[in-house]
Amino acid sequence: MASFEPKNPGYGAAATAMFDAQPAMRTLGISIVRLAPGEVELAMPHSPAYTQQNGFIHAGIITAGLDNACGVAAFTLMPREADILTVEFKTTLLAPARGERFIFKAEVVKPGRTLSFCEARAFAEHEGKTTLIATMSGTLMAMLPRVAAPQAPNTTHP
Amino acid sequence: MASFEPKNPGYGAAATAMFDAQPAMRTLGISIVRLAPGEVELAMPHSPAYTQQNGFIHAGIITAGLDNACGVAAFTLMPREADILTVEFKTTLLAPARGERFIFKAEVVKPGRTLSFCEARAFAEHEGKTTLIATMSGTLMAMLPRVAAPQAPNTTHP
Amino acid sequence: MASFEPKNPGYGAAATAMFDAQPAMRTLGISIVRLAPGEVELAMPHSPAYTQQNGFIHAGIITAGLDNACGVAAFTLMPREADILTVEFKTTLLAPARGERFIFKAEVVKPGRTLSFCEARAFAEHEGKTTLIATMSGTLMAMLPRVAAPQAPNTTHP
Amino acid sequence: MASFEPKNPGYGAAATAMFDAQPAMRTLGISIVRLAPGEVELAMPHSPAYTQQNGFIHAGIITAGLDNACGVAAFTLMPREADILTVEFKTTLLAPARGERFIFKAEVVKPGRTLSFCEARAFAEHEGKTTLIATMSGTLMAMLPRVAAPQAPNTTHP
Repeated sequence: MASFEPKNPGYGAAATAMFDAQPAMRTLGISIVRLAPGEVELAMPHSPAYTQQNGFIHAGIITAGLDNACGVAAFTLMPREADILTVEFKTTLLAPARGERFIFKAEVVKPGRTLSFCEARAFAEHEGKTTLIATMSGTLMAMLPRVAAPQAPNTTHP
Repeated sequence: MASFEPKNPGYGAAATAMFDAQPAMRTLGISIVRLAPGEVELAMPHSPAYTQQNGFIHAGIITAGLDNACGVAAFTLMPREADILTVEFKTTLLAPARGERFIFKAEVVKPGRTLSFCEARAFAEHEGKTTLIATMSGTLMAMLPRVAAPQAPNTTHP
Repeated sequence: MASFEPKNPGYGAAATAMFDAQPAMRTLGISIVRLAPGEVELAMPHSPAYTQQNGFIHAGIITAGLDNACGVAAFTLMPREADILTVEFKTTLLAPARGERFIFKAEVVKPGRTLSFCEARAFAEHEGKTTLIATMSGTLMAMLPRVAAPQAPNTTHP
Repeated sequence: MASFEPKNPGYGAAATAMFDAQPAMRTLGISIVRLAPGEVELAMPHSPAYTQQNGFIHAGIITAGLDNACGVAAFTLMPREADILTVEFKTTLLAPARGERFIFKAEVVKPGRTLSFCEARAFAEHEGKTTLIATMSGTLMAMLPRVAAPQAPNTTHP
């Protein structure tokens, strides 16, 4: 795993503040378990309110956790003045989301001035066993105040 | 758009029952607006409880609507005894999920005995204007009772 | 389908020149069939050199056609000084790539100053029948000379 | 990384034979470097014939290598009588495909009777430096003779 140098020395507080500013995370009961430059781990308890027809957590809710893990991980490597948004992600569902608690681990694969690429994995903790239940591959975008972010020259990559 | 022949004449009641059996849909306030063989339209009101840091609906919640639209659309073309699960999807976020109401339209691109492929679009209704805000491309799988579903022969596609 | 206004009145010549500058397209025998603002159609003959173990065209080669169709479609809507690169795409394979000729149709779903989103479909022409064999959902990026492309302000989308 | 038990003791010869039966791999000069249960590494030399407008290898060709790496990795864990096909994949392009040689490493994330999920990474070797240039997340399907592959019961995952 790559080791990243954060541009914002206060990355931890900034990422936590961005996370805490999301009512959706509070509503779903998702919290930050661990935070490091380019890496994050979130946790979510089981809630019957977010299940599908077989009693497993709905794929969209698992995706909310994975996406937020990617967003926070990417955000830790962005400059202080950046806001972040998700461009796209793919979620693959490997096993039913059955458990008492769910863990979302994300890491930045490649940070960039404009675009950052992340991967995340969701795990279910069920009766003392931890199972990989889903993966995500996502693209995130730094939104910067206009003057601070000139575009890359031709033939240079994101 | 393709026109599909449902295998289950009671596809409407079956799809509605499957949808209604999902607590997550009730919790998010998502409902079925329109249902046809291989096509579905869902609607969801805005809820501050599911927003991210800029007041837009969280990408995971938009994904929950898109994924469910795909699932119901695919389910309308499956045999009566099938259950359904999502294999994977990609969500692309084109514009902020800002609005009073959100619409999720899905259609089956190719139904199959085992795998079905769907596409969906999410729209935001905001101050009388409807905007395309996200797209999904997803794979869904029919789960059939063991005896009823022999596998395809070599070199035949899903 | 949306109707788009090209920023570069010479979009046709520019897109054709960009396409012609790609040795890979020449090697695979891919050519432009139709070009309009935000839309393109490419064609490729069957070639045994690019088949997989069952005699169908390899998924990577079908992807090359789909990706290039997306790239040319997005490029028609970019300013004259832009170069283009692909950020990511998802390819879904619906049916075997069996045929004498393959068609790749792409259209821009949402153009943007930095990112453009496209969808494409691949068709096989086989014994007088045309079959949808694959779909793509992709993100492309405009690379602009540094001075010409300030970044978007906070909370505005790509 | 998981350690997998192959169902086919002759998995190495079977995977190599499947790979060798693909004219596309020969045409692109791709070869197997390393093979283990659920893991594979392929290599491809640079070829000007497969470049795009900036002299980098075309994204479709990089995808052909990634997809084939996923396919061979998944195939090593399938039963002897299986054929394999790709259902879908997402390719993310992190850096230009510039180099003298390209490496494609794939591993199975979760094998299944019907569906297998793989991840792959592409690296460019350029002037003595190795750079991660692309990632893939893909779904592959085992095609089995009809009698040998009953379907999973309800609520069991792929």
